[in-house]
Amino acid sequence: MKARIISTGTELTIGQTVDTNAAWLAQQLAGLGVECSGHAAVPDDQALIHDAITAASREAEIVLISGGLGPTPDDLTRFALADAMGVGMWSDEASLDQIKAFFEQRKREMSEANRVQALFPEGAKPIENTCGTAPGMHARVGDAEVFVMPGVPFEMKQMFDRDVRPALSARTGGGVILQHTLRTFGMPEGEIGEKLADLMKRGRNPTVGTGAADLIISIRLNARGASAEEARGLVEADAAEVRRRMGSFVFGEGDETMADAVAKLLASRRKTVSTAESCTGGLIAKQLTDISGSSAYFVQGVVSYANEAKCRLLGISPGLIASRGAVSPEVAQAMAVSCRHMAGTDFALSATGVAGPTGGTADKPVGLVYVGLADDQGVAVKELRLGDSLSREAIRDRTAKIALNLLRLRLTEHA
Amino acid sequence: MKARIISTGTELTIGQTVDTNAAWLAQQLAGLGVECSGHAAVPDDQALIHDAITAASREAEIVLISGGLGPTPDDLTRFALADAMGVGMWSDEASLDQIKAFFEQRKREMSEANRVQALFPEGAKPIENTCGTAPGMHARVGDAEVFVMPGVPFEMKQMFDRDVRPALSARTGGGVILQHTLRTFGMPEGEIGEKLADLMKRGRNPTVGTGAADLIISIRLNARGASAEEARGLVEADAAEVRRRMGSFVFGEGDETMADAVAKLLASRRKTVSTAESCTGGLIAKQLTDISGSSAYFVQGVVSYANEAKCRLLGISPGLIASRGAVSPEVAQAMAVSCRHMAGTDFALSATGVAGPTGGTADKPVGLVYVGLADDQGVAVKELRLGDSLSREAIRDRTAKIALNLLRLRLTEHA
Repeated sequence: MKARIISTGTELTIGQTVDTNAAWLAQQLAGLGVECSGHAAVPDDQALIHDAITAASREAEIVLISGGLGPTPDDLTRFALADAMGVGMWSDEASLDQIKAFFEQRKREMSEANRVQALFPEGAKPIENTCGTAPGMHARVGDAEVFVMPGVPFEMKQMFDRDVRPALSARTGGGVILQHTLRTFGMPEGEIGEKLADLMKRGRNPTVGTGAADLIISIRLNARGASAEEARGLVEADAAEVRRRMGSFVFGEGDETMADAVAKLLASRRKTVSTAESCTGGLIAKQLTDISGSSAYFVQGVVSYANEAKCRLLGISPGLIASRGAVSPEVAQAMAVSCRHMAGTDFALSATGVAGPTGGTADKPVGLVYVGLADDQGVAVKELRLGDSLSREAIRDRTAKIALNLLRLRLTEHA
Repeated sequence: MKARIISTGTELTIGQTVDTNAAWLAQQLAGLGVECSGHAAVPDDQALIHDAITAASREAEIVLISGGLGPTPDDLTRFALADAMGVGMWSDEASLDQIKAFFEQRKREMSEANRVQALFPEGAKPIENTCGTAPGMHARVGDAEVFVMPGVPFEMKQMFDRDVRPALSARTGGGVILQHTLRTFGMPEGEIGEKLADLMKRGRNPTVGTGAADLIISIRLNARGASAEEARGLVEADAAEVRRRMGSFVFGEGDETMADAVAKLLASRRKTVSTAESCTGGLIAKQLTDISGSSAYFVQGVVSYANEAKCRLLGISPGLIASRGAVSPEVAQAMAVSCRHMAGTDFALSATGVAGPTGGTADKPVGLVYVGLADDQGVAVKELRLGDSLSREAIRDRTAKIALNLLRLRLTEHA
């Protein structure tokens, strides 16, 4: 069974609002084992909404629509649906009573404009709205079953949970899609594609796909089963196989961040960390303390941004900075060693570099960064050449991830 | 001139990722005066991508596509586009050289899989990707001009700004919508609505609307004019009026952050700042150094997370912490004063509080935060009660904004 999602609203098509309704509905469909073959967002335009409903109902058995049920002149979904069904409108007294009751309960006057919210295409069934004035609709267009819900996210979600999900569930009869995501760091996407080529072949169950964002490559598994158990068995078998092939390149699951992964390892091994940052300006400390309970492993950080700050806060010798430059492996090394010593932590991370877009030279271009990791065995420094085409934000973000990944790998070895 | 937007990726149609690319592209189209008559999101399925391209190119003169240009088997946009154009593929040597150079610059091996990224439908022109491996494409399908960009948001944005916007701009040359946003902090949205009621009336040009996100209320002006000049004149007149009514509640324009506003003021007044953070864990320093050139005003920061770190890094007396608690106005005050003194800066900001979700007590609940601002006149401390219904992230974010806003108002007074 296939479904399509339609979101209506000019605020979406001019980009003033990001369409989170479609993503939420898509997640619910996946959980029900219903394949979603596409979303569409259309402006408040009766003809365009009509076109979208007609197209979707030809391609899918289920069409979920949100938005355009309000009382104002730009709320046109009910009329577009009637056009698509080829019918006229009727007014539902029971819905009108509910809308009136909604206002009375809040001691407010119902405006005449709200009467339109009790109008339905002939043959469409009202769906009660338990937390707003706009009732939903359940209708048939050609062979497709169409559900219309309000655009306000929490009203839409309540209506879906209360009425639409049970209706869909009754139609599916148990098929379930389970999603699982493994997050990897350090292996290029092309290489992952080669390593997992057989698993990524089209038509397999589970399907395996990759997606890249800010150096992190996610490997997504989607298993379809007659039952949740069957789907879970399939997804777990594939996840284990992917983990076996990818080894320590896998750092987490779901939406775990690199800092989450490091935090877990530090906490479980009862180790502590401190940070000495220059170009990242506090980002590494911020990420390590994003997590509740971070006081178990994070002791302190310094943002030694100016050269004098490196000397003052970390006791780096001004001579070293003068001879090697603040952006140098020697300074990264000294920052990490001194930071660890002063904080009394098991590990210390340091970063110094040129985050740009200004400040680069031929010798030390934008994107040149040194990250250091000190522990009881000594100190390791890694040179990064992130390139001058990245934004400052991207250079800082990648530096933080690479530094945290160094620590992650060290903690994994220590296991 | 009409446009449609297509986003490809199963991560979108199963709801794992919210489609922010479509919203961003829609904003750019609105800015160019191009009407967007719809978005579509389709899974990684060659036939469905083909259908979407075909449908969009029949309805609109411009089609913007993002995603599906990667090197793995689920990246199918290039082939779907060739199907829609009714042509075969060719390999572009120049693109292949750029992809190879991308890997060489990063001292990494190009995988064989990446060769597919130099394949283009016959008749499609490559668009250089200056910050990733996937070149874009510029092609014609029927009467529509089609642009394909990578799905990674920052690569997509760079490519749009560098190549697609100029191409679209050359085609328009007519009616223009100009957007302008004023960003405010500290006045509730309802109060703003009352203050600007006459400007916010429906049917006015410019339209004036508000939107709230994370304590910042944006006032958006959209002016429509026959020319860019006419639209600019309208928008500037309204912006001036809004600024007059809102006074120092307006801190910036466009997508300026609170840190941007503070950075500008510090730089123009040649003042310096340092930070001493506990609950925000480096977030304030991170925000102040998000901006290129921040070394002009940011000297150093400390993240004194553990109590010992507050004593060690800032010389706070252990007795003060024992008697008042680490989360107290006295400790916030001492942190700011000591930080300013040690760093030798004009200003110092401090923050100490309970970011939660754990660690709250009846006396010091989650959301209780003290922020301090020290300058040559002394030190001011503000108590925040942000409530325990906010996430840790929101409590930290709001704390940082409120601290920076204190400094902004102080800098404005000093003018």
